[in-house]
This record gives sequence, structure tokens and C-alpha cells, in this order.
Amino acid sequence: MQRYFVEPANWQDNRIILRGQDAHHIIRVMRMKTGETIICVHPDGHAAKCEIDELASDYVAVSAVEKVDMNTEMPVSVSIAQGLPKGDKLEWIVQKGTELGAAAFLPFQAARSVVKWDEKKKDKKRQRLEKIAKEAAEQSSRLIIPAIEDVQSFQMLLDSSDTYKHKLFAYEEAAKGLKAEPLRSVFQHISPSDNVLVVIGPEGGFSESEADALQDAGFAPIRLGPRILRTETAPLYMLASLSYHFEE
Amino acid sequence: MQRYFVEPANWQDNRIILRGQDAHHIIRVMRMKTGETIICVHPDGHAAKCEIDELASDYVAVSAVEKVDMNTEMPVSVSIAQGLPKGDKLEWIVQKGTELGAAAFLPFQAARSVVKWDEKKKDKKRQRLEKIAKEAAEQSSRLIIPAIEDVQSFQMLLDSSDTYKHKLFAYEEAAKGLKAEPLRSVFQHISPSDNVLVVIGPEGGFSESEADALQDAGFAPIRLGPRILRTETAPLYMLASLSYHFEE
Repeated sequence: MQRYFVEPANWQDNRIILRGQDAHHIIRVMRMKTGETIICVHPDGHAAKCEIDELASDYVAVSAVEKVDMNTEMPVSVSIAQGLPKGDKLEWIVQKGTELGAAAFLPFQAARSVVKWDEKKKDKKRQRLEKIAKEAAEQSSRLIIPAIEDVQSFQMLLDSSDTYKHKLFAYEEAAKGLKAEPLRSVFQHISPSDNVLVVIGPEGGFSESEADALQDAGFAPIRLGPRILRTETAPLYMLASLSYHFEE
Repeated sequence: MQRYFVEPANWQDNRIILRGQDAHHIIRVMRMKTGETIICVHPDGHAAKCEIDELASDYVAVSAVEKVDMNTEMPVSVSIAQGLPKGDKLEWIVQKGTELGAAAFLPFQAARSVVKWDEKKKDKKRQRLEKIAKEAAEQSSRLIIPAIEDVQSFQMLLDSSDTYKHKLFAYEEAAKGLKAEPLRSVFQHISPSDNVLVVIGPEGGFSESEADALQDAGFAPIRLGPRILRTETAPLYMLASLSYHFEE
């Protein structure tokens, strides 16, 4: 059943109003009729099966008929800090990462990031990523839309990292067999409801000084399997492994 | 270190000759000099660290100086049968799936596949996918290049499936909580050196008759986490989970 995230302001008891792109999607794209059902998700994470009462030109009115209480959220809250990659890779890291249960995405300017986001680009990029996250969250039946943070510097990332209980970074050297706990034993220290920050480097990986700074700041190096993963594949391996460990 | 898969014919004892695109890559792209080292991988899966002796216009001669015996292959042999998806999705399923350790890719024409591959298209597509698999295998330091099978019909897929010890299919209904063993207990029946066939539907998923036929043919429905994954995300979740289970 089609899902839509609806602003708290548009919930009046059992009556819910969908506007803008969601209304357009229901009326023009799905061509739904009154009496048909959708799922509305409240930003606080509760969801309701709703019946369409009214299809206006610019809004859709539905009434909640049944609570949906299937939890599709990862028990662990996983934030992915991604060194800015080339091209549109970040867009599909956000799309796939949302499907795989990420709680938030924190893009950062890494030493080896080829691209730079100027002030003007920044907001456009974030808005585009927010749209991708919302659509992926609806399609994958998430109960929350992952947050997209503003792009930040590497230092800002380190400075704000103490709010996370577990701090990890994917270190290519670790995949090559050098110093790193097996992922399984790293996960065994993580409890449901913990929050985890995973830092992934851009195409060139981390510079040596970044890798040192991460370890000084209390980040543990992890390997994501024995093969060398591209920057856009690493967060997906991490999220799928966590999902398997905690949800399967 | 840069890796290249070299045909058996080009190995003469310790002297190895690289030609064609690999030679071009070493000479023009990497601009390497004599004395520098690369890793050559033999199709039988052994690899050697090699020193460049000679850079000709159309070939590069190297000598093996050291055996490389780090095993980067998944203990389980996993073949991904993918219902033909839209656009270039299959290309990146092959790229990411190769990074994540897949042994082979079997594209098939599913009931809900929107695209069709005619005879002429078929070979071009397979050759392109083979190139992508080779490059991804080199980049991710695999010891084998995953095989790309010709596109086949759903029936051919069923008929040829008995060579696999474990036969699974990703069933969306399973993600919705209906009948399906947890992935963990499915994996517990799999031993290293077993071969596994995982069938993934196209965008629309499996038709009901396909799902029935798969179960009649002995395929077990599996869920890949509680969220609904896009067709191109499902094989990556499967491969990452297997890697985590058997390699971490």
C-alpha cells in the first residue's frame, strides 16, 4: 500500500489532509479514487491505514481507519558520515542507505574529496537529498525519514561526534588485514537503542592524518569484509550487516 | 597495488605478458615505469606480486617476484539470478555484487520485467557486463571474475537450478511478515564451499505464478530485513549479510 509522510499540522484526530506533491501523487500519478486506502505516517513514527474521503484539486482528505503497528525501523540508530564522493554517488548512498535503515546522513568535506560544495550549492544539494530520502523512506515503508545534515568540515565532524555511543570508521587498511576488530565483535558491544556513527572516506579513502585524528577522537577502525569496497558500497555493507545482526 | 587478471596463455613460468586494455592501462593510464610492481591474478585464482621488466608499445612484460596468498573470495559460492530490471540497474548490480563477492550473475526474463533483450542486444549486454565485472573484480581485489550468464527464460532458470545445494528467492511478501524463515536460520544450514542460488525479482517483484513455481521447484522464500528493498538493493543486502555471516 502506498505510504505518505504527513506533517503533524495536517493530522486532525482521525482526519488527515495531504497537500502539495503527495496530493499530486495520489490524484495524478496513482489516479486513486475515494474509498481506496493509503498509509499515512506521522513524523513521530506512528502510522495509520487511511481511507480516501475527498479528492480536491490541490489536497486529499483521508480518515484513519486502522493503526499500522509493524515496526520497520532498525533497533540501532545508525548515522552515516560520508566524505563527499564524486558525481551523483551521494544521492544513491542516501536512497539505498534509507532503504537499508540509516537514521541520518552527515556529508563532510574530506581531504581527498574531489568535489567542493559552495554556499549556494549546499542548500540545493541538501534539499535534493531530503527529497530522495523521503521518497525512499515511503517506498521502503520506513517510519521515519532519515535526517540530512548540512555538509561540514572534517574537524566539525570530530567535534560533534561525542553525542554518539559508538564511533567507527571504515579503514581500507583494515580490509587489507591490518589491525581491526572483526565486525562481529564490534557489533557485540552495540546494544539495541544505542546510536552509532560510521565515518566513510571518499574515493581516495582517508588521508593518514585523518585516520590518525579519527583514532585520537575515539573512532575504532573497522573492516567491511575482506574485499576493497568503493566509497558508495561501504555504507551499504555496514547497514546491511547491522540489519542482519539485529533484525534477522 | 593495481591488479590485473591475466589469461593462462600469457603466463610463462615467472614471466607474464599483459596485452590489450591491461597494457594500455599500465602504460597510458597509470603511466608506470619498469621496476614498479603490480599484482597479476591467474584465472585459477592464484595471484603474484610482479615487477615490470619491459614496457613495449602494445604489451607489458613482468616477472613474478612473490606469491600473494590473501584469500578475498567468499567461502560460499553465491549466484545471483536477477529478473531483468530497468535502465542500467543491472550494470551496477554486477559492479556492486562483484565487490560484495558474488560468484555469478544469471539475468532472466521475469513476467514483470519491462525490458526485453533481443538476440542482437543480448551479446552486447553480456560483453558490457563482463567488462564491468572484470574491472570491479580488479578494483575490489577479487581472485576470480564473476561469470555473466546469458539472459534466460524463467523456465530455463528453474530447469537448471538443481545444480545448486541451496535455492532461495527474495519474496516481498516475506518482508511484510508472511511465511519465511529468518535469514539467520537459513544461513545456518549453509556450509562453507556450498553453492547458493538467490533469485531476485524485477521492479514489480514476482508474479504469483512465479512465486508458486519457485516454491514448487524447491526454492525457499526469504526476507531481506523488515523494509521493502528495491530490486537493485536486494542482491546487495543478501551478499553483504552472507559476507558478514561467513567472513566477519
